[in-house]
Amino acid sequence: MNGADSLCDTLLANDVRVCFANPGTSEMHFVAALDRKPEMRCILGLSEGVVTGAADGYARMTDRPAATLLHTGPGLANGLANLHNARRARIPMINIVGDHASYHLSLDAPLTSDIESLAAPMSKWVHRIRSAEDIAGATEAAYRAAMSPPGVVTLILPADAAWGDVSAEPPERLSHPALAAVNMDTVREVAHAIRDTPGEVGILLAGRAARADCLEVAGAIAAAHDVRLLGEMQLARMERGGGRVSATRIPYAIDSALELLADIDVLVLAGAPEPVAFFAYPGKPGRLVRKGCKVLTLASHGEDLKGALEALRDELGVRPHQPLSRPTPSGDSIVPFGHLTEDAIAVMVASALPDNAIICDEGVTSARRLFELSSGSAPHDYLMNTGGSIGCGIPLATGAAIACPDRKVINLQADGSGMYTVQGLWTQARENLDVVTVIFANRAYAVLHGEMRRVGANGIGENARRMMDLDHPAWDWVSVAKGMGVDAAGAYSCEQFADLFQSALRRRGPFLIEAVI
Amino acid sequence: MNGADSLCDTLLANDVRVCFANPGTSEMHFVAALDRKPEMRCILGLSEGVVTGAADGYARMTDRPAATLLHTGPGLANGLANLHNARRARIPMINIVGDHASYHLSLDAPLTSDIESLAAPMSKWVHRIRSAEDIAGATEAAYRAAMSPPGVVTLILPADAAWGDVSAEPPERLSHPALAAVNMDTVREVAHAIRDTPGEVGILLAGRAARADCLEVAGAIAAAHDVRLLGEMQLARMERGGGRVSATRIPYAIDSALELLADIDVLVLAGAPEPVAFFAYPGKPGRLVRKGCKVLTLASHGEDLKGALEALRDELGVRPHQPLSRPTPSGDSIVPFGHLTEDAIAVMVASALPDNAIICDEGVTSARRLFELSSGSAPHDYLMNTGGSIGCGIPLATGAAIACPDRKVINLQADGSGMYTVQGLWTQARENLDVVTVIFANRAYAVLHGEMRRVGANGIGENARRMMDLDHPAWDWVSVAKGMGVDAAGAYSCEQFADLFQSALRRRGPFLIEAVI
Repeated sequence: MNGADSLCDTLLANDVRVCFANPGTSEMHFVAALDRKPEMRCILGLSEGVVTGAADGYARMTDRPAATLLHTGPGLANGLANLHNARRARIPMINIVGDHASYHLSLDAPLTSDIESLAAPMSKWVHRIRSAEDIAGATEAAYRAAMSPPGVVTLILPADAAWGDVSAEPPERLSHPALAAVNMDTVREVAHAIRDTPGEVGILLAGRAARADCLEVAGAIAAAHDVRLLGEMQLARMERGGGRVSATRIPYAIDSALELLADIDVLVLAGAPEPVAFFAYPGKPGRLVRKGCKVLTLASHGEDLKGALEALRDELGVRPHQPLSRPTPSGDSIVPFGHLTEDAIAVMVASALPDNAIICDEGVTSARRLFELSSGSAPHDYLMNTGGSIGCGIPLATGAAIACPDRKVINLQADGSGMYTVQGLWTQARENLDVVTVIFANRAYAVLHGEMRRVGANGIGENARRMMDLDHPAWDWVSVAKGMGVDAAGAYSCEQFADLFQSALRRRGPFLIEAVI
Repeated sequence: MNGADSLCDTLLANDVRVCFANPGTSEMHFVAALDRKPEMRCILGLSEGVVTGAADGYARMTDRPAATLLHTGPGLANGLANLHNARRARIPMINIVGDHASYHLSLDAPLTSDIESLAAPMSKWVHRIRSAEDIAGATEAAYRAAMSPPGVVTLILPADAAWGDVSAEPPERLSHPALAAVNMDTVREVAHAIRDTPGEVGILLAGRAARADCLEVAGAIAAAHDVRLLGEMQLARMERGGGRVSATRIPYAIDSALELLADIDVLVLAGAPEPVAFFAYPGKPGRLVRKGCKVLTLASHGEDLKGALEALRDELGVRPHQPLSRPTPSGDSIVPFGHLTEDAIAVMVASALPDNAIICDEGVTSARRLFELSSGSAPHDYLMNTGGSIGCGIPLATGAAIACPDRKVINLQADGSGMYTVQGLWTQARENLDVVTVIFANRAYAVLHGEMRRVGANGIGENARRMMDLDHPAWDWVSVAKGMGVDAAGAYSCEQFADLFQSALRRRGPFLIEAVI
């Protein structure tokens, strides 16, 4: 067997069974090896932004890494923006980046570039394989690095290592290191703060702590001690709806975020870093908590978040089963009609959400009310753009649908962001993924119009307008989607949208609705 | 005025008048400044691969840098693949990458990343602006670095530098440093080798040396001394056709390249590095010249290539005006008919080429005969993918059309590569650019099928097939192009193609032909 076989076998032994890929010549031996392993599911993305974004969506829904296969520095480069989002989502991923044969590098052939320098900003761990014999050990190290704590790792595979012979033992499944015991000193410090702070306490829940079981524990603490539960501004994944305990998401808009946190005296972090402003604005603070707010870390990403929350609950003497406040569907449900608006779409999506849907929200300005409106919807997962690098929605939905073939994936997609990685629709068509894409076709980078006002620009002239508006010509999303194999239709009124959305939910396979707002 | 104004003014003072852009929030003050300078032409790309690829095409045709406006690390990351090609094309470009306000970086907000690490592999020069007062000097330094020798430079613009006040003097136009005098010792050494080598001599011409005037000088030398003129495997730009002196391009396929150079005893480099194999293959050499071949550098990129060629001609005593062998259109022109093939398309394009067309060839496997067939066509420029990072064709054509509004741009485009940056069609529509895009719709990464055979893989299974074939579903390019505002039609026979191509040449504005082969 060759090095490429050894790499595949090591991934498979550790249950890495999906490879999102866009290979090139330097990866041909790896492709040949994958071809010998039908148990590896290889999924082509028509640009690497689709590849890495899909691997992110897959990992968010499975807590497992997918492999990606990327072609040299430029292939990696195309995937970096969604790797940036994946890094901020703190999910596991193993990038395999093919490179020239090691002896070819000194010739500086056209495709040569400094892959390490490109990979480092978006990877917690980068390693260049030295030889075929190094591959099994390097792949195991990559897997370990990707899993504890979860993060993006990048393994550079020179062609000569891939095609070199190895006499490797069949790889064994690596044992997972047990999570470190909960730090009881920290738990007692947090409990003390919750019990003895005269003012407001908030718990910011992220990662594993934003799943239903952890929210249940946090909800019990919140009910007993009048604590507020908060979610991150950019949610990697939150389980909610269906009577689950809910948390208030920190809003994106700086003034709203500051207002939400203004009266918090103690902020407890469970899996999240301290919240900060997405951007700096002249005269506004960067930290979102007020001056003097005490910030305590109960447990960090990769630690035993559930154990820490349970220990905190017990330390506080909260009984697990006392009744909790849970959001419920609004009784007097409004049925929007007539002119289609962003908020009308949010109302209709929230009310029609099927059980166990996965929402991928890259609605940017257009979906801003959806999170709030869907707290009482059927049970679902809520995924967002975590790093602010636009173009994650379509790939994320693609990966989530691969991960969860029995669940409906609903991608609420801003048009400007969707244009970045529209090629992902083709992968949805090829794999017949059960994804409904709703394009908010406002034909502008609407967020920039808002930001332009916020920086105090008076009026918008020709140059600015031509960098922020997406009209002249407007994309015909129906035509683009159909061209990539995804059936699609346009909605111009609430009634049309409701009909299309209902019928899209009833069918299986990808469908796109261009909601013209 | 603020720092952003100072940056714009410095660019404009140095005649940088086109800005390809995809801005974000951290660039809003820069956008507002651009809005105050109507003399700067701002052109939106719907992803940064379009932005940087278009800036490359613009520079190849004008020898002048465009500015690009990119949003933080991820925005830069999306543009890196085409920056890689631009770096290999050795063209000038000034990237302006917006970043958070400097005091916001330590908070590690979601969009924060190590921009320097991302930029370095594709930039000859990277600088982070320290303050508003630093901007004018930094922009001048960026311009100088981009121009001598020409290359890609990256200027990082923190938001607080952009919005900070400056009391800058109105910027002055920088003087261009004169090219260093031709090194006559080198000229004499090369002349000696040409005169006294009993075997074959080749001159490899690239960059400025691949323009018509330099080719004319090289042609005189070649005619007088039986020297072979060669062009690079991946041409940044060559002026040819219309009776101009032609050069033989080094082929991509390793065996053909080795064969072409096998009997060259002395290779003279004029603006090109020594040619090497695009990829390494087991058992094949990486250097393309034979062992023992003497490689001499007459002049390098950024040096006085024309002066060096003229000095060489004079040193050799070649009279400028002796008659040269020039390619002419084939007398018995073949008119292909019936079933549409790659080579039939090449024949039809070569024979119908209008005067002064600009060919952007990202045909990969499909256009491989076009270069040879078009040597006798009407005068034209020939541009190729220089770095092997696919997805340059549509953006390159976009930028070339901005640079040369009075010339027809013809983009011969492989389908798999075109899918990477298909969003560029929208920019062509918005700017009403005179570009004819010919998609070679073979519905495969055909180059990978060839490479798979070359690495000795026996047969192709399901996993490999699904990573190399683009069928199931096939893109409907006509639908995709129309959805982005570009009129389009499909050609299934030679007759249909000839009709569509002729009518596309007669009209102005973008048009796409999906050539189904």
